[in-house]
Amino acid sequence: MAESVQGYLDAHRDTYNQEFLELLRIPSVSTTPEHAGDVRRGAEWVMERLKKAGVPEVELIETAGHPVVFGTWHAAPGKPTILVYGHYDVQPADPLNLWKSPAFEPTMRDGRIYARGSADMKSNLVTLIQAVEALAAVHGAPPVNLTFFWEGEEEIGSPHAREAIEANNDRLKADAVLSCDGGMEGPNTASLNVSLKGMTGLQIDLRTSSTDLHSGMYGATVPNALQAMAKLAYSFHDADGRVAIEGFYDDVVELSPEERAELAAHPQSEAELLEEAGVSAAWGEPGYSAKERQGARPTIDFNGIWGGFQGEGTKTVTPAEAHLKVTSRLVPNQDPAKISELIKKHALAHAPAGATVTFSNVEHGAPAYTVPRDNPLQATAERVLTEQYGSKPVIERSGGSVPITATFKAVLGLDTVTIGFGLPGSNVHAPNEWFREEDLDRARTVYAAYLSAF
Amino acid sequence: MAESVQGYLDAHRDTYNQEFLELLRIPSVSTTPEHAGDVRRGAEWVMERLKKAGVPEVELIETAGHPVVFGTWHAAPGKPTILVYGHYDVQPADPLNLWKSPAFEPTMRDGRIYARGSADMKSNLVTLIQAVEALAAVHGAPPVNLTFFWEGEEEIGSPHAREAIEANNDRLKADAVLSCDGGMEGPNTASLNVSLKGMTGLQIDLRTSSTDLHSGMYGATVPNALQAMAKLAYSFHDADGRVAIEGFYDDVVELSPEERAELAAHPQSEAELLEEAGVSAAWGEPGYSAKERQGARPTIDFNGIWGGFQGEGTKTVTPAEAHLKVTSRLVPNQDPAKISELIKKHALAHAPAGATVTFSNVEHGAPAYTVPRDNPLQATAERVLTEQYGSKPVIERSGGSVPITATFKAVLGLDTVTIGFGLPGSNVHAPNEWFREEDLDRARTVYAAYLSAF
Repeated sequence: MAESVQGYLDAHRDTYNQEFLELLRIPSVSTTPEHAGDVRRGAEWVMERLKKAGVPEVELIETAGHPVVFGTWHAAPGKPTILVYGHYDVQPADPLNLWKSPAFEPTMRDGRIYARGSADMKSNLVTLIQAVEALAAVHGAPPVNLTFFWEGEEEIGSPHAREAIEANNDRLKADAVLSCDGGMEGPNTASLNVSLKGMTGLQIDLRTSSTDLHSGMYGATVPNALQAMAKLAYSFHDADGRVAIEGFYDDVVELSPEERAELAAHPQSEAELLEEAGVSAAWGEPGYSAKERQGARPTIDFNGIWGGFQGEGTKTVTPAEAHLKVTSRLVPNQDPAKISELIKKHALAHAPAGATVTFSNVEHGAPAYTVPRDNPLQATAERVLTEQYGSKPVIERSGGSVPITATFKAVLGLDTVTIGFGLPGSNVHAPNEWFREEDLDRARTVYAAYLSAF
Repeated sequence: MAESVQGYLDAHRDTYNQEFLELLRIPSVSTTPEHAGDVRRGAEWVMERLKKAGVPEVELIETAGHPVVFGTWHAAPGKPTILVYGHYDVQPADPLNLWKSPAFEPTMRDGRIYARGSADMKSNLVTLIQAVEALAAVHGAPPVNLTFFWEGEEEIGSPHAREAIEANNDRLKADAVLSCDGGMEGPNTASLNVSLKGMTGLQIDLRTSSTDLHSGMYGATVPNALQAMAKLAYSFHDADGRVAIEGFYDDVVELSPEERAELAAHPQSEAELLEEAGVSAAWGEPGYSAKERQGARPTIDFNGIWGGFQGEGTKTVTPAEAHLKVTSRLVPNQDPAKISELIKKHALAHAPAGATVTFSNVEHGAPAYTVPRDNPLQATAERVLTEQYGSKPVIERSGGSVPITATFKAVLGLDTVTIGFGLPGSNVHAPNEWFREEDLDRARTVYAAYLSAF
């Protein structure tokens, strides 16, 4: 057995970093059917890696979609059981032409590893398993009881996770969930997440004529689907950026003065946030800081629009149809199904004369999630992060959504503590996603410390 | 020699119709570089067909783009010289999935031949040549002097036609142009075109951030390119459908009461026009009838929009860029360059905060064109159409643009008479374009009658 966990991690640094690159090369894009085989390869890679780490029971839980990699290592009687959650799937890489190096060929530049999934969240997945391996190598077994649940459909809204959790209810009993799907405030500043936004989404399909038309013959006299969609899309916000859907804010709970103060304590200024995003002006609901809007105010987001001719040159067509992908990020107390209905109602009520509106790709949706501040595993996370980073973590209300946390609560009664290592500006869900090589070391050390703290 | 021109045409009906299908099978799409070889095949087919018809001098005039098929048959001393104009190129066929039969495999359904280019305008091109062949077969030579100028770039705005016309100034001397690029009011109602709209166009490229962003991290706080583009696009019209660009209508000449009466005499009602277009409501500038808007009022048309994620499912991205293809149909006295500048000025002035607007695919543009009512070849057309259809043609102000007519006027001093046979609703520039088989007979007969009327 090795002398210390850190010594073991240091000795295996090169191999461990290479393993990360190996997983990044598997394009486990869950959205697109043509990558289904790659997603399965990703699952198999994770399964083999768990076995190699010493996890005694490992299997794939099959679903109607992509499989869950499941494992248990319960060898610490009297200690808590932690259900480790994360996902091995990634977002699509398009638009491909904006990547400076191939999305699935990890490339090192200036200490950063560029690849789809590097920050979200193959780094966390790989380093957590490596930390477990190191703990077991030094102590004979992990110092807490661990159950692993790595899903392959997080990036498409976890459509089959609930079913898998319900079917394996017994085997998933634990004290809390440790989600690896998160990030830190900065290279030397930890964050402790206390809430995640919910989400719902759909596609608006608008039609103005039975077929595309010659713009010279009809453009002056009939509705243009693109003009109608522009009008409809614009109606979703007022001129100041506030969502203009009737009833949208009805169930939103305002932050308390203490909660606002916590968010105001974040070291990142609004100007820094804009610079990090590469934008020249802020936008969004008036009356709230950027951090408040990001973490505690619901949004309507346009994710895609298309219609008519997109090629080089000119095509003088009056398009018959236009499409808009809309998602809404939700805060606690908002019901995804209700918001989905409000979006539909708004679209139908604001469809211009001559435009027919229908909906497709309607997401099931998930509510927001809040971690109770007094959960013991959350308190331990705060203590370990304070020790590891040398200062208290900033309190984070995530603008992102990990819908499965609400499912863990509903089905298993478990709260979720989040520890992950991606940094702001790492182009998650965008071209040129990156993760700092040195944060692989940090992640392994912090995960090992957390799992040893009980 | 055959007894009568009509007898000759009747005897060759099957062969002639087959020739039409042959030309339709050549995908001579001028817009997309990958079809360059097909466009040339189209040119060669037309050249060979002219030779076969007996045209003594035929050649390809090369340009920096697609070639012009040029020919002369001057064997009627003392008679007028007619410069026959048309194009052998076609619009792109996309969206391909909306075609009920392949765009370049002509398919007969209910007496209609479905194929890209069937109405616009391979029908007119083929039947004109066949009429010339029949006239020559009966009379030994055509009864007027003919010069042929078939271009291959009409659908991309004739970028090299002016150069070709200037370079061949001498050989193009004529009394007027007969353009085959037009259509009829209805199966039994001829139209006589007295004006064509001009056109200009460009692409608006809008950017809000340096890269696509995670909508959870940034969607609540930074501009969304799709939302910004929707706002910008919507600003181009007022709520009633009038163009809201400052100065846009400044140079427009109002129709006289007589001209309004001529347009009001059209047999097609607005309700019929909407039904033909497959739309449920009219749209456009208030204060004018549909026919007036179509023929005599300028427009801003959106031809394409895109940005963000267009695939199946959901991608929670805050898109960094959006694109909008805009064209403007112009009426007499409007300057394309001036309108192009007004569009740019409007887009720059109305770009939302945080959005950067640039332009690409800026078209050279072409002014509108009006045929003098007293031109002798126009008067002859009116007489022949009246004889052939049994009633006076309706006066047509085309909403379409044939920019080259303005070039013929400027470079050669020639006015353009238009005779073509496509019908309203034939899906020109749209999926499932069609041409009635029986109108192939009509077109040959009318063209032969017109060329014999001098």
